[in-house]
Amino acid sequence: MSQPKETSTPEAAVLRANAAFYRAFTQGDVAAMGALWAEETEVTCFHPGATLIRGRSAVLSAWKQIIAEPAPFEMRCDHAHVQLLPRAAIVTCYEGNADRPAHLAATNVFVLEGGRWRMVHHQAGPLSRPVARPVAPPSSDLN
Amino acid sequence: MSQPKETSTPEAAVLRANAAFYRAFTQGDVAAMGALWAEETEVTCFHPGATLIRGRSAVLSAWKQIIAEPAPFEMRCDHAHVQLLPRAAIVTCYEGNADRPAHLAATNVFVLEGGRWRMVHHQAGPLSRPVARPVAPPSSDLN
Repeated sequence: MSQPKETSTPEAAVLRANAAFYRAFTQGDVAAMGALWAEETEVTCFHPGATLIRGRSAVLSAWKQIIAEPAPFEMRCDHAHVQLLPRAAIVTCYEGNADRPAHLAATNVFVLEGGRWRMVHHQAGPLSRPVARPVAPPSSDLN
Repeated sequence: MSQPKETSTPEAAVLRANAAFYRAFTQGDVAAMGALWAEETEVTCFHPGATLIRGRSAVLSAWKQIIAEPAPFEMRCDHAHVQLLPRAAIVTCYEGNADRPAHLAATNVFVLEGGRWRMVHHQAGPLSRPVARPVAPPSSDLN
């Protein structure tokens, strides 16, 4: 069966990079997480409740601490939405663990580096009311 | 006295747009807030704890509700930091009211539209520990 048309759009490419981020998170894959973050642009990160982390080394060190825990947990990204900018993109979504309702709102910003979408900024913060997991998440959330 | 050199850099221009956002917020200036958000790019907004607002009309309507309250309150932006992307920029900062310690972490994303930096995305979420107001905030936070 041929690939659906949308897999070739910039939006689909951004969603694939976004999904790779949550896959690296879920699998505790430090190398994949490192490959995902930009190298030619400064990167920053706001973990929930925390102050800003600046710079690739500090950002990846913090991610390593989070995802390399003995028992990685599934981090879902529901309702991923893409805003395309010139050679950059914003993905907004709700983050949830396993099959529980999403408890965080997230912003992920990507830039094109050498033809690849790479993350330059992440912010996640608590939702006042958890958002139920979609009954049938669109395939773009899963790839 | 001549203007400091940095006022002509893209970073300084982004910081001015960012400061205009907090000025519109503080002054309850609905027109200025409207002029600040992008028109050629989709806009989105995560208010603290809330789900995503999409589209210029919905985003501005929500801001109007927030800033047009009878008693506008000062919303500061401390430690504003700029990441320049191709024709776009991310500003991260801590938001606080009046002279109280900052209680929110914020991401503001801007794009260049017709030579002006305009906002396309905002997310603010609670800080676990408030961040003290800088003793002598840099002038770029105030302009």
